[in-house]
Amino acid sequence: MTSIQERLYPDLPCFGCGHGNPDGLKLRSYPAEDGTVTATFTPWPAHNNGLGYLNGGIICTVLDCHSAAAVMLEADRRGWEPLGDAALSHVTAGLDVRYLRPSPLHEPVELLASVKEATEAQLTIDVSLIWDGKTRAEAIAVWKRWRPRA
Amino acid sequence: MTSIQERLYPDLPCFGCGHGNPDGLKLRSYPAEDGTVTATFTPWPAHNNGLGYLNGGIICTVLDCHSAAAVMLEADRRGWEPLGDAALSHVTAGLDVRYLRPSPLHEPVELLASVKEATEAQLTIDVSLIWDGKTRAEAIAVWKRWRPRA
Repeated sequence: MTSIQERLYPDLPCFGCGHGNPDGLKLRSYPAEDGTVTATFTPWPAHNNGLGYLNGGIICTVLDCHSAAAVMLEADRRGWEPLGDAALSHVTAGLDVRYLRPSPLHEPVELLASVKEATEAQLTIDVSLIWDGKTRAEAIAVWKRWRPRA
Repeated sequence: MTSIQERLYPDLPCFGCGHGNPDGLKLRSYPAEDGTVTATFTPWPAHNNGLGYLNGGIICTVLDCHSAAAVMLEADRRGWEPLGDAALSHVTAGLDVRYLRPSPLHEPVELLASVKEATEAQLTIDVSLIWDGKTRAEAIAVWKRWRPRA
Protein backbone atom coordinates (compact mmCIF):
# COMPACT_ATOMS: atom_id res chain seq x y z
CA MET A 1 0.00 0.00 0.00
CA THR A 2 1.21 3.50 -0.80
CA SER A 3 1.68 5.74 2.23
CA ILE A 4 -0.56 8.74 2.82
CA GLN A 5 2.41 11.02 2.22
CA GLU A 6 3.39 9.40 -1.08
CA ARG A 7 -0.22 9.33 -2.29
CA LEU A 8 -1.37 12.83 -1.28
CA TYR A 9 1.82 14.92 -1.27
CA PRO A 10 4.63 12.88 -2.83
CA ASP A 11 6.96 15.79 -3.60
CA LEU A 12 6.67 17.68 -0.29
CA PRO A 13 10.02 19.05 0.97
CA CYS A 14 8.99 18.71 4.66
CA PHE A 15 11.85 17.62 6.95
CA GLY A 16 9.72 15.10 8.79
CA CYS A 17 7.45 13.57 6.17
CA GLY A 18 8.37 14.96 2.78
CA HIS A 19 9.43 12.36 0.26
CA GLY A 20 10.77 15.24 -1.81
CA ASN A 21 13.32 16.02 0.93
CA PRO A 22 16.44 13.86 0.46
CA ASP A 23 17.76 14.81 3.91
CA GLY A 24 14.52 14.36 5.88
CA LEU A 25 12.94 11.59 7.92
CA LYS A 26 10.55 10.49 5.12
CA LEU A 27 7.82 9.29 7.47
CA ARG A 28 5.31 6.85 5.96
CA SER A 29 1.82 6.70 7.53
CA TYR A 30 -1.08 4.41 6.64
CA PRO A 31 -4.82 4.37 7.29
CA ALA A 32 -5.97 1.48 9.50
CA GLU A 33 -9.34 -0.22 9.22
CA ASP A 34 -10.52 1.24 12.54
CA GLY A 35 -10.13 4.81 11.29
CA THR A 36 -6.80 5.49 12.99
CA VAL A 37 -3.55 6.22 11.18
CA THR A 38 -0.41 4.21 11.94
CA ALA A 39 3.29 4.41 11.15
CA THR A 40 6.59 2.84 12.09
CA PHE A 41 9.54 5.17 12.58
CA THR A 42 13.14 4.02 12.83
CA PRO A 43 15.33 6.67 14.51
CA TRP A 44 18.72 7.59 13.15
CA PRO A 45 21.75 7.11 15.43
CA ALA A 46 22.06 10.92 15.57
CA HIS A 47 18.62 11.25 17.19
CA ASN A 48 20.00 10.90 20.72
CA ASN A 49 18.47 12.92 23.57
CA GLY A 50 21.85 13.05 25.29
CA LEU A 51 21.00 10.18 27.66
CA GLY A 52 20.90 7.38 25.10
CA TYR A 53 17.18 7.61 24.34
CA LEU A 54 15.21 9.10 21.46
CA ASN A 55 15.43 12.90 21.32
CA GLY A 56 12.33 14.82 22.42
CA GLY A 57 12.50 17.19 19.48
CA ILE A 58 12.56 14.30 17.05
CA ILE A 59 9.60 12.81 18.93
CA CYS A 60 7.77 16.11 18.38
CA THR A 61 8.74 16.04 14.72
CA VAL A 62 7.27 12.61 14.04
CA LEU A 63 4.19 13.24 16.23
CA ASP A 64 3.55 16.48 14.31
CA CYS A 65 4.13 14.91 10.90
CA HIS A 66 2.15 11.78 11.71
CA SER A 67 -0.77 13.96 12.86
CA ALA A 68 -0.37 15.75 9.52
CA ALA A 69 -1.06 12.48 7.71
CA ALA A 70 -4.31 12.07 9.68
CA VAL A 71 -5.26 15.68 8.90
CA MET A 72 -4.49 15.48 5.19
CA LEU A 73 -6.32 12.17 4.85
CA GLU A 74 -9.39 13.70 6.53
CA ALA A 75 -9.12 16.86 4.42
CA ASP A 76 -8.82 14.77 1.26
CA ARG A 77 -11.93 12.77 2.17
CA ARG A 78 -13.88 15.93 2.97
CA GLY A 79 -12.73 17.85 -0.12
CA TRP A 80 -10.86 20.54 1.81
CA GLU A 81 -8.23 21.25 -0.82
CA PRO A 82 -5.09 23.35 -0.38
CA LEU A 83 -5.66 27.02 -1.16
CA GLY A 84 -3.71 28.98 -3.73
CA ASP A 85 -0.49 27.24 -4.67
CA ALA A 86 0.07 25.74 -1.20
CA ALA A 87 1.04 22.09 -0.95
CA LEU A 88 -1.00 21.51 2.23
CA SER A 89 -4.54 22.45 3.28
CA HIS A 90 -3.77 23.00 6.97
CA VAL A 91 -0.80 23.81 9.25
CA THR A 92 -0.06 23.00 12.88
CA ALA A 93 -1.21 25.71 15.28
CA GLY A 94 -0.29 23.89 18.47
CA LEU A 95 1.38 20.74 19.72
CA ASP A 96 1.05 19.82 23.40
CA VAL A 97 3.42 16.94 24.09
CA ARG A 98 3.83 14.91 27.26
CA TYR A 99 6.85 12.64 27.58
CA LEU A 100 5.72 9.71 29.69
CA ARG A 101 8.60 7.26 29.45
CA PRO A 102 11.97 7.10 27.65
CA SER A 103 11.74 6.02 24.01
CA PRO A 104 14.42 3.78 22.56
CA LEU A 105 17.00 5.18 20.15
CA HIS A 106 17.93 1.93 18.41
CA GLU A 107 14.52 0.29 17.86
CA PRO A 108 11.64 1.09 15.51
CA VAL A 109 8.76 2.79 17.32
CA GLU A 110 5.06 2.92 16.44
CA LEU A 111 2.95 6.02 15.87
CA LEU A 112 -0.82 6.13 16.27
CA ALA A 113 -3.10 9.05 15.36
CA SER A 114 -6.83 9.60 15.49
CA VAL A 115 -8.97 12.55 14.50
CA LYS A 116 -10.90 13.86 17.53
CA GLU A 117 -12.59 16.90 16.00
CA ALA A 118 -12.66 18.10 12.43
CA THR A 119 -14.07 21.19 10.80
CA GLU A 120 -12.61 22.84 7.74
CA ALA A 121 -11.31 25.65 10.00
CA GLN A 122 -9.66 23.45 12.64
CA LEU A 123 -8.82 19.81 13.32
CA THR A 124 -7.69 18.24 16.59
CA ILE A 125 -5.63 15.05 16.50
CA ASP A 126 -4.59 12.69 19.29
CA VAL A 127 -1.21 11.22 18.46
CA SER A 128 1.11 8.96 20.41
CA LEU A 129 4.43 7.17 20.21
CA ILE A 130 4.42 3.58 21.42
CA TRP A 131 7.15 1.03 21.97
CA ASP A 132 6.97 -2.40 23.55
CA GLY A 133 3.26 -1.96 24.23
CA LYS A 134 3.64 1.23 26.28
CA THR A 135 2.92 4.81 25.29
CA ARG A 136 6.19 6.73 25.48
CA ALA A 137 4.89 10.16 24.45
CA GLU A 138 1.49 11.54 23.56
CA ALA A 139 0.33 14.82 22.10
CA ILE A 140 -2.70 16.83 21.11
CA ALA A 141 -2.09 18.50 17.76
CA VAL A 142 -4.28 21.37 16.61
CA TRP A 143 -4.28 22.14 12.91
CA LYS A 144 -5.74 25.23 11.24
CA ARG A 145 -6.66 26.09 7.68
CA TRP A 146 -3.65 27.48 5.83
CA ARG A 147 -4.34 30.61 3.81
CA PRO A 148 -1.23 31.56 1.83
CA ARG A 149 -0.61 35.25 1.34
CA ALA A 150 -1.71 36.54 -2.04
CA MET B 1 32.01 33.61 25.90
CA THR B 2 31.62 29.84 26.06
CA SER B 3 28.07 28.60 25.52
CA ILE B 4 26.12 26.96 28.34
CA GLN B 5 26.22 23.69 26.42
CA GLU B 6 30.00 23.75 25.88
CA ARG B 7 30.66 24.78 29.49
CA LEU B 8 28.28 22.43 31.35
CA TYR B 9 27.93 19.40 29.03
CA PRO B 10 30.49 19.72 26.22
CA ASP B 11 30.44 16.07 25.15
CA LEU B 12 26.66 15.51 25.14
CA PRO B 13 25.43 13.44 22.15
CA CYS B 14 22.03 15.23 22.07
CA PHE B 15 20.70 15.82 18.54
CA GLY B 16 19.64 19.37 19.28
CA CYS B 17 22.31 20.77 21.58
CA GLY B 18 25.05 18.20 21.98
CA HIS B 19 28.47 19.34 20.86
CA GLY B 20 29.50 15.69 21.01
CA ASN B 21 27.01 14.89 18.21
CA PRO B 22 28.65 15.51 14.82
CA ASP B 23 25.29 15.21 13.02
CA GLY B 24 23.23 17.38 15.38
CA LEU B 25 22.17 21.02 15.48
CA LYS B 26 24.82 22.03 18.06
CA LEU B 27 22.74 24.79 19.62
CA ARG B 28 24.70 27.41 21.58
CA SER B 29 22.86 29.28 24.36
CA TYR B 30 24.14 32.12 26.56
CA PRO B 31 23.05 33.71 29.83
CA ALA B 32 21.94 37.33 29.47
CA GLU B 33 22.38 40.02 32.13
CA ASP B 34 18.63 40.14 32.83
CA GLY B 35 18.52 36.48 33.84
CA THR B 36 17.14 35.17 30.56
CA VAL B 37 18.97 32.78 28.24
CA THR B 38 19.42 33.62 24.56
CA ALA B 39 20.56 31.84 21.40
CA THR B 40 20.70 32.30 17.67
CA PHE B 41 19.79 29.32 15.53
CA THR B 42 20.44 29.08 11.81
CA PRO B 43 18.21 26.44 10.17
CA TRP B 44 19.57 23.98 7.65
CA PRO B 45 18.04 23.97 4.15
CA ALA B 46 16.55 20.54 4.98
CA HIS B 47 14.49 22.00 7.85
CA ASN B 48 11.56 22.85 5.57
CA ASN B 49 8.00 22.50 6.87
CA GLY B 50 6.80 21.65 3.37
CA LEU B 51 5.56 25.18 2.70
CA GLY B 52 8.92 26.94 2.60
CA TYR B 53 9.06 27.87 6.27
CA LEU B 54 10.90 26.42 9.27
CA ASN B 55 9.67 22.95 10.23
CA GLY B 56 7.55 22.74 13.38
CA GLY B 57 9.41 19.70 14.69
CA ILE B 58 12.73 21.50 14.37
CA ILE B 59 11.13 24.47 16.17
CA CYS B 60 10.19 22.05 18.98
CA THR B 61 13.72 20.67 18.99
CA VAL B 62 15.40 24.03 19.47
CA LEU B 63 12.76 25.25 21.96
CA ASP B 64 13.25 22.06 24.00
CA CYS B 65 17.04 22.21 23.85
CA HIS B 66 17.17 25.95 24.54
CA SER B 67 14.94 25.43 27.58
CA ALA B 68 17.42 22.71 28.59
CA ALA B 69 20.19 25.30 28.70
CA ALA B 70 18.10 27.45 31.07
CA VAL B 71 17.37 24.39 33.24
CA MET B 72 20.96 23.18 33.38
CA LEU B 73 22.24 26.67 34.17
CA GLU B 74 19.73 26.95 37.02
CA ALA B 75 20.55 23.44 38.25
CA ASP B 76 24.26 24.23 38.15
CA ARG B 77 23.74 27.41 40.18
CA ARG B 78 21.60 25.57 42.73
CA GLY B 79 23.89 22.53 43.03
CA TRP B 80 21.37 20.04 41.60
CA GLU B 81 23.88 17.67 40.07
CA PRO B 82 23.11 14.80 37.68
CA LEU B 83 22.41 11.55 39.50
CA GLY B 84 24.31 8.31 38.94
CA ASP B 85 26.25 8.41 35.69
CA ALA B 86 23.67 10.55 33.86
CA ALA B 87 24.91 13.50 31.81
CA LEU B 88 21.93 15.70 32.71
CA SER B 89 20.15 16.47 35.98
CA HIS B 90 16.66 16.83 34.50
CA VAL B 91 14.64 15.70 31.46
CA THR B 92 11.70 17.23 29.62
CA ALA B 93 8.34 15.99 30.89
CA GLY B 94 6.18 18.19 28.71
CA LEU B 95 6.41 20.74 25.91
CA ASP B 96 3.32 22.77 25.03
CA VAL B 97 4.05 24.64 21.80
CA ARG B 98 1.95 27.22 20.02
CA TYR B 99 2.88 28.18 16.48
CA LEU B 100 1.87 31.83 16.13
CA ARG B 101 3.37 32.85 12.79
CA PRO B 102 5.51 31.22 10.10
CA SER B 103 9.24 31.18 10.91
CA PRO B 104 11.76 31.72 8.13
CA LEU B 105 13.79 28.83 6.77
CA HIS B 106 16.70 30.82 5.38
CA GLU B 107 17.36 33.34 8.16
CA PRO B 108 18.87 33.01 11.65
CA VAL B 109 16.20 33.12 14.34
CA GLU B 110 16.46 34.10 18.01
CA LEU B 111 15.57 31.97 21.01
CA LEU B 112 14.67 33.38 24.43
CA ALA B 113 14.15 31.37 27.62
CA SER B 114 13.33 32.30 31.20
CA VAL B 115 12.87 30.18 34.30
CA LYS B 116 9.35 30.66 35.70
CA GLU B 117 9.41 28.16 38.57
CA ALA B 118 12.24 26.04 39.90
CA THR B 119 12.44 23.35 42.50
CA GLU B 120 14.83 20.43 42.41
CA ALA B 121 11.89 18.17 41.49
CA GLN B 122 10.50 20.29 38.65
CA LEU B 123 11.31 23.40 36.63
CA THR B 124 9.04 25.35 34.30
CA ILE B 125 10.55 27.37 31.48
CA ASP B 126 8.99 29.90 29.11
CA VAL B 127 10.75 29.70 25.76
CA SER B 128 10.08 31.41 22.46
CA LEU B 129 11.37 31.71 18.91
CA ILE B 130 11.55 35.24 17.56
CA TRP B 131 12.34 36.65 14.14
CA ASP B 132 12.13 40.21 12.87
CA GLY B 133 10.85 41.39 16.25
CA LYS B 134 7.86 39.04 16.33
CA THR B 135 7.35 35.86 18.33
CA ARG B 136 6.88 33.02 15.85
CA ALA B 137 6.42 30.17 18.32
CA GLU B 138 6.28 29.94 22.09
CA ALA B 139 6.27 27.05 24.51
CA ILE B 140 6.04 26.10 28.14
CA ALA B 141 8.60 23.41 28.93
CA VAL B 142 8.31 21.33 32.10
CA TRP B 143 11.44 19.53 33.25
CA LYS B 144 11.65 16.87 35.93
CA ARG B 145 14.50 15.38 37.94
CA TRP B 146 16.10 12.49 36.04
CA ARG B 147 16.70 9.38 38.13
CA PRO B 148 18.58 6.82 36.04
CA ARG B 149 17.76 3.18 36.68
CA ALA B 150 20.25 1.48 38.94
